[in-house]
Amino acid sequence: MRFDIITIFPEYFTPLSASLLGKARDRGLLSFGVHDLRDWAYDRHRTVDDTPYGGGPGMVMKPEPWGQALDDVLTPRSRLVVPTPSGRPFTQRVAGELAASDHLVFACGRYEGIDSRVMAHYSSVVEVDELSIGDYVLAGGEVAVLVMIEAVSRLVPGVLGNAESVSDDSFAPGRMEHLVEGPVYTKPPQWRGLAVPDVLKSGHHGRIARWRRDEALRRTAARRPELLERVELDSHDRRLLESLDLAEHPDPVAD
Amino acid sequence: MRFDIITIFPEYFTPLSASLLGKARDRGLLSFGVHDLRDWAYDRHRTVDDTPYGGGPGMVMKPEPWGQALDDVLTPRSRLVVPTPSGRPFTQRVAGELAASDHLVFACGRYEGIDSRVMAHYSSVVEVDELSIGDYVLAGGEVAVLVMIEAVSRLVPGVLGNAESVSDDSFAPGRMEHLVEGPVYTKPPQWRGLAVPDVLKSGHHGRIARWRRDEALRRTAARRPELLERVELDSHDRRLLESLDLAEHPDPVAD
Repeated sequence: MRFDIITIFPEYFTPLSASLLGKARDRGLLSFGVHDLRDWAYDRHRTVDDTPYGGGPGMVMKPEPWGQALDDVLTPRSRLVVPTPSGRPFTQRVAGELAASDHLVFACGRYEGIDSRVMAHYSSVVEVDELSIGDYVLAGGEVAVLVMIEAVSRLVPGVLGNAESVSDDSFAPGRMEHLVEGPVYTKPPQWRGLAVPDVLKSGHHGRIARWRRDEALRRTAARRPELLERVELDSHDRRLLESLDLAEHPDPVAD
Repeated sequence: MRFDIITIFPEYFTPLSASLLGKARDRGLLSFGVHDLRDWAYDRHRTVDDTPYGGGPGMVMKPEPWGQALDDVLTPRSRLVVPTPSGRPFTQRVAGELAASDHLVFACGRYEGIDSRVMAHYSSVVEVDELSIGDYVLAGGEVAVLVMIEAVSRLVPGVLGNAESVSDDSFAPGRMEHLVEGPVYTKPPQWRGLAVPDVLKSGHHGRIARWRRDEALRRTAARRPELLERVELDSHDRRLLESLDLAEHPDPVAD
């Protein structure tokens, strides 16, 4: 799978050589191209932004350099991804959609964003996704692109080694969907006065699975209560959730 | 403001020297420490992970190296941030909470996460936040930490220059909260047959503000309908939203 990134901060993308992604690139599973938008800005100052029509603070990225760059980098089979706080949410489902493509091109906006005609124009040429990775304000699209590339890459067949197994492949397929995971433990059995729960040392698979589901339900209720609406609950689950005392769950509720 | 990061991939954090953050560091507004967790792993192989109690795929990060590292890096006034898919959502509001701290320490988990006793132990020592940047699966906490540091840093007084103005400071304070922004335009007025909307060239501030709100409402309805519940709507807003024909808004609805 091929990723091309157009940015005014190409030096931001050294993490693509680290860890999982660097290994996958070395094995020929992924390839990356990082391009400096200013290489397509032809005036003396290599200008990429200008004031917004209609006034207001900040600068808008000019359409011409983006048009020159995208004409060069896109192919008819590419998919164009534009990270923006006004995009639809990037979720694991969207990561799966993007992983089905052979060639993703990422356009990193800075300042108040890219002139909207750029996305309008290319929407008639290739598939265009304007995506937001979360409800917070970043300084630009670069780090959002790192997030999306990491989430998409690990879905490309062969990229994940044994050490980085996919949690979804657990022995209870489907049952844990939409729940956040509960606590995890490894050796030693005692650490700073804190013990690993006995059930996890019991070897009793049924009880362990039940304990893990109970803890996942507890934690989801405390931290992500809105997810519970999407979970299929059995009668045990319901009794557990009804028994939860808020006082036992001091986790702050998400805003 | 000081950020310390503990990771098994210290080379991942070169983007902290780029762009906005690098400039703020050079001006003494931010400082960063990146630490290799393996420096606190004392066995011959510098092991940081082991199999999970209770079975299942993947590896869990051992508590001892984390305890040694955090004992060294934390101070009584630090706040410990652990990125994890099971955390409460990291939002702009949480970014604001974190920006009020003098010292954030980030613990980057890999594999199936960090032994849960680590967070339990340090919860009685400092404030601990387990946070998730979004509903997608990453290979580790590193890129989530880059996201959080960028969102927090730009809230530190003096970090944002004029070129990177904060959109929230627009001339319509409060009114646009919980709406995603509509399209933006800059020169030239015509590009590849696409024109800048006339209203933005009218100089009529009232009409421009109304147009921007209409476009923000349209786009929010198309891409983030769940946000509309939180928006204070006037009668004009309501008429606009009622008039929206789904056929005009082919944006895929978020899952």
